[in-house]
Amino acid sequence: MSLSTPDLPKHVKVVEVGPRDGLQNEKQPVPTDIKIALIDRLSAAGFANIESTSFVSPKWVPQMADGAEVMAGITRRPGTIYSVLTPNLRGFEGAVAAKADEVVIFGAASEAFSQRNINCSIVESIERFAPVARAAKDAGLRLRGSISCALGCPYQGEVPVASVVDVVQRLAALGCDEIDIADTIGVGTPSRTREVMEACAKVFPIERLSGHFHDTYGQATANVYAALLSGISIFHSSVAGLGGCPYAKGATGNVATEDVVYLLHGLGIETGIDLDAVVRTGDFISRAIDRPNASRVGRAMLAKLQDGAPACV
Amino acid sequence: MSLSTPDLPKHVKVVEVGPRDGLQNEKQPVPTDIKIALIDRLSAAGFANIESTSFVSPKWVPQMADGAEVMAGITRRPGTIYSVLTPNLRGFEGAVAAKADEVVIFGAASEAFSQRNINCSIVESIERFAPVARAAKDAGLRLRGSISCALGCPYQGEVPVASVVDVVQRLAALGCDEIDIADTIGVGTPSRTREVMEACAKVFPIERLSGHFHDTYGQATANVYAALLSGISIFHSSVAGLGGCPYAKGATGNVATEDVVYLLHGLGIETGIDLDAVVRTGDFISRAIDRPNASRVGRAMLAKLQDGAPACV
Repeated sequence: MSLSTPDLPKHVKVVEVGPRDGLQNEKQPVPTDIKIALIDRLSAAGFANIESTSFVSPKWVPQMADGAEVMAGITRRPGTIYSVLTPNLRGFEGAVAAKADEVVIFGAASEAFSQRNINCSIVESIERFAPVARAAKDAGLRLRGSISCALGCPYQGEVPVASVVDVVQRLAALGCDEIDIADTIGVGTPSRTREVMEACAKVFPIERLSGHFHDTYGQATANVYAALLSGISIFHSSVAGLGGCPYAKGATGNVATEDVVYLLHGLGIETGIDLDAVVRTGDFISRAIDRPNASRVGRAMLAKLQDGAPACV
Repeated sequence: MSLSTPDLPKHVKVVEVGPRDGLQNEKQPVPTDIKIALIDRLSAAGFANIESTSFVSPKWVPQMADGAEVMAGITRRPGTIYSVLTPNLRGFEGAVAAKADEVVIFGAASEAFSQRNINCSIVESIERFAPVARAAKDAGLRLRGSISCALGCPYQGEVPVASVVDVVQRLAALGCDEIDIADTIGVGTPSRTREVMEACAKVFPIERLSGHFHDTYGQATANVYAALLSGISIFHSSVAGLGGCPYAKGATGNVATEDVVYLLHGLGIETGIDLDAVVRTGDFISRAIDRPNASRVGRAMLAKLQDGAPACV
């Protein structure tokens, strides 16, 4: 039964999604200068990829209405990829004008979720992105595809592994450079994570697959570890755990970046990220938007700083 | 790099420690009838082992001063082991009078922690338990040994694996039936967890070693999964995440039982525990002592019940 510690990736890319995926769920408008300061602090902390905003109709997502101002206001760190969500060609044009490095398209692995959220099938929803994908390739931009509900769905419950694999193949056919396997509602556990990741890795290069976990059921760091064991080396996370779960008020959403980076460093994996700077950034944004810090690493490290408690980490 | 999902234990014993380890850290006195109701709800939910109270000087731990009343008030569920902490022979006599099924002795794997907390060496601290251990064996009681700071120490930081193994051997020599490897301050990550568990399993039967993880740095479910991969099949947890971290105010302490049981069931592992009943028990005790529910599974499942949101789990 006992295994020796298996090989883990030597280096992991952590994609910080707080400025977009995290802040998007905030009810109160977040001032543009706070968003800019957040992104600049994150790039200074060493993130090589920051999901920065959406170019989406402000009627749908008022919180992201200032995407162009945010992108114009940030200080670009050489080498950092600033990603934006682009639901359609109009959004894509906004992204190009804003000099985004990467555009993100998306679909669900759950038929019920696709039908209820955008009133079309999974296949149709992916096909609608074909013009955006072509335009991105023509413009020489990186293209990322994100698959929601990959480990479970709030409407249909179980999501077949084959559905996830099918969406991976469709996104790959559109030319995606990177594909995200997202546990949107945080219901997944490690065996399922490994099963899905290993199935997807059979149809898409594993070094370009990413894991996007939510901590709604407290499984996120376990799932990150499980995915590492399957060879995944890109993970999404949100500083201070920004972003709730729209399907269960008061519940946790995106896994906190601090908790993921702590895990990775504890496993001896390089990230290029300064954890102390991330903890300070999590404190900054939590105070700026008057929200409890949802990172346990953040709370523990900040409490120790304040208490002058023995430093052991 | 990629591994197929490895074998995991088919059945896991979850030792519920909320009534003792969890409540012990509460500043406000918890009424005896609430403690009794908590333990009875837990046994009804299916726990085979509940750490119920301490027989320790009320000067040291006023919250546990009613240990005899608690033990006298509970309804014994046949088959459930009710454990109590016994720091000395006087505590042991209290435990016998209260008809405890198991007594728990303890020591740190960190020399600095031992010196600072009880002003003696690790070796001395274990030797002091010899009379209690002998008395327990003579009385035919189960004896459990708990090793704190096994993955890190608030004073000395790193704790050598060899120190943990040494304490395991000393507790085994005293006749312990079960030995707990406790990450008291929650700093451990999965590779270290596996290293320590696998080293201890070389000197003590793995089926009688347990993992006791704190979620202070958000690593607890990852560490439980890691320990399962090493073959560990007994875990401690605390309903609603009762119990804070005395070394970092506001930080999380014991891993929540709900989160661990959700993980285990998601991995297809039997526990004999009714998760819904545990979630309701977590809600009961959190309300009774006016404390936020620190279980993410608890919060998510309760929010869904209240919202009438789509049931997907």
